[in-house]
Amino acid sequence: MFEDKKQSFTPISELGEFGLIERLTKNARKNAPNTTKGIGDDAAVIENTDEQTLVSTDLLIEGVHFDLTYVPLRHLGYKSVAVNLSDICAMNAKPTQVTVSIAVSSRFPVDALDELYEGIHLACNNYGVDLIGGDTSSSTTGLMISVTAIGQAKTERIAYRHMAEDKDLLVVSGDLGAAYLGLQLLEREKEVFKVNPEMQPELNENHAYMLERQLKPEARLDIVQLLEKLEVKPKAMIDVSDGLSSEILHLCKASKVGCKIYEEKIPIDPTVINLANDFQIHQTTIAMNGGEDYELLFTVGMEDYDKIKGNPSLTVIGHITSESEGVNMVTSTNESIELKAQGWNQMKQE
Amino acid sequence: MFEDKKQSFTPISELGEFGLIERLTKNARKNAPNTTKGIGDDAAVIENTDEQTLVSTDLLIEGVHFDLTYVPLRHLGYKSVAVNLSDICAMNAKPTQVTVSIAVSSRFPVDALDELYEGIHLACNNYGVDLIGGDTSSSTTGLMISVTAIGQAKTERIAYRHMAEDKDLLVVSGDLGAAYLGLQLLEREKEVFKVNPEMQPELNENHAYMLERQLKPEARLDIVQLLEKLEVKPKAMIDVSDGLSSEILHLCKASKVGCKIYEEKIPIDPTVINLANDFQIHQTTIAMNGGEDYELLFTVGMEDYDKIKGNPSLTVIGHITSESEGVNMVTSTNESIELKAQGWNQMKQE
Repeated sequence: MFEDKKQSFTPISELGEFGLIERLTKNARKNAPNTTKGIGDDAAVIENTDEQTLVSTDLLIEGVHFDLTYVPLRHLGYKSVAVNLSDICAMNAKPTQVTVSIAVSSRFPVDALDELYEGIHLACNNYGVDLIGGDTSSSTTGLMISVTAIGQAKTERIAYRHMAEDKDLLVVSGDLGAAYLGLQLLEREKEVFKVNPEMQPELNENHAYMLERQLKPEARLDIVQLLEKLEVKPKAMIDVSDGLSSEILHLCKASKVGCKIYEEKIPIDPTVINLANDFQIHQTTIAMNGGEDYELLFTVGMEDYDKIKGNPSLTVIGHITSESEGVNMVTSTNESIELKAQGWNQMKQE
Repeated sequence: MFEDKKQSFTPISELGEFGLIERLTKNARKNAPNTTKGIGDDAAVIENTDEQTLVSTDLLIEGVHFDLTYVPLRHLGYKSVAVNLSDICAMNAKPTQVTVSIAVSSRFPVDALDELYEGIHLACNNYGVDLIGGDTSSSTTGLMISVTAIGQAKTERIAYRHMAEDKDLLVVSGDLGAAYLGLQLLEREKEVFKVNPEMQPELNENHAYMLERQLKPEARLDIVQLLEKLEVKPKAMIDVSDGLSSEILHLCKASKVGCKIYEEKIPIDPTVINLANDFQIHQTTIAMNGGEDYELLFTVGMEDYDKIKGNPSLTVIGHITSESEGVNMVTSTNESIELKAQGWNQMKQE
């Protein structure tokens, strides 16, 4: 529903595999200083620095991770790269390269893949990473995207999940829940469209932020850079892809600690609070279980509090405790409730 | 048709994503010395050596790259890893890590994925590489496997495709064409099976080598190691995945050179020659266009001839010429014919 309707399309079969790869990657720019050889040989070559190399990989499957009835291909390309870079950022590292493989059915003309790759190149350029390889294949149904992200970090800067310690402060970047409500808006419009294709979408200015958070999420490389500038070493770190609750539980389990977070501290955008009321879902439920925010959740030692306090991009939402105290949220009515894993897929099924 | 028929299966949904990953990766061994952190965080961490890092990625899609009616899942897992490692070897580098992502429909029980991962782990252990990450997802149809292979090589040992020079010798490892005939055998048995499911497969001892080459190909890491031992630096290198003809053309195009190869020098196993007669396809056609052999094709300077001559794993099949002389094969009847690109997919369609 967002795409231009073009009149003539080029079928993929007209180009062949090598022609297709050449067309899709001809706009790849060289951004990262350590790429020795990108696309065009059996393997890409990356110069080793005195840092460590980080590697992460994700699949995005049509009908499982995205719905092309409301996700523009350009945004999908951008998001495919951004969510993988987020995993590199979640180690407190800087992304440098990606490989992108796609399997695609014949219902997609080359023009559709051009749009997908526009988004891929835009994300690469925005984050200063290089597209260094990939594979293209036909698929029996739909579109499948596999991205591997590579990054670099100094050994002493890497933040694993298991490094949180008792009394650390628990910090989250940005705000939470908007991506989930963005998805709800798109799903609602899809239903309306199904009933009456003539109807204009009811997406207004107040919804722009939430739609953008869903359709074009960003990896918080700026937070990795900010922490470096502030001379703060995050001790344990994870990105918020499945919802705050689930990520806190992962981090605490890996670090063998408990934690206490405060409901009233959770950063939520005012537009999310308003729309949550319309959807009759509690705003905290959305922030805790919504997912796809791709914010960074991390702990810092108490000695670093002065360096981060008052920063508009960072919010201290609680602190780490001993494992025996469990993982708890203190509600705004001052009750303590235990957090349980509940990813956003579960939420959708309710 | 090769699989054990088990009585009770565990559906994937019973385990959930995290449970599934834990089950499939619990047998991952640490093989590579430079893996700092494997599975279990947002990204894997690899220690940078004084070498360069190589990265290659491939997709394998059910119904496009493999047919589960005759490919056992254990072999498929092994092959998925081996063919990616072959790309690292094709740079004259040593593979060190892989990530493996799978998308799988609900028709596969966990037991099927156990078999797939048995093959993946076996390949990792045979080649001394670590499984350091991946992603699992549901799929709307079939099985999809995405593998990214990572390796290391000293800068001066890396063999790009573009480094062949006039008068270099053109060398190929092992023998060619067996993997293609292995596929033809499996396809023939599938047709027989369709007509009469009670019929016993007509696969005999003489076919064992060809079936193994198709079902369980190996990356020629041993050749990379052999060349190092012989103190031979291959100048340009590529692996034979799409057929010798196509790879020679890639190498010559990238290096801006021509070449002359001799039909009678092309190494072909005697069992392939015999079966080629049965199938009424010329043995040279099979070797040139068959594909999936995963042998290494490379050039060496003439001064290295004494170091490689007589080695049973290496065959000099011709030499590099100037670009203007073109890419030619001298037949056994002493005619010169120009080589044209013809991948094995084209061949199958004939």
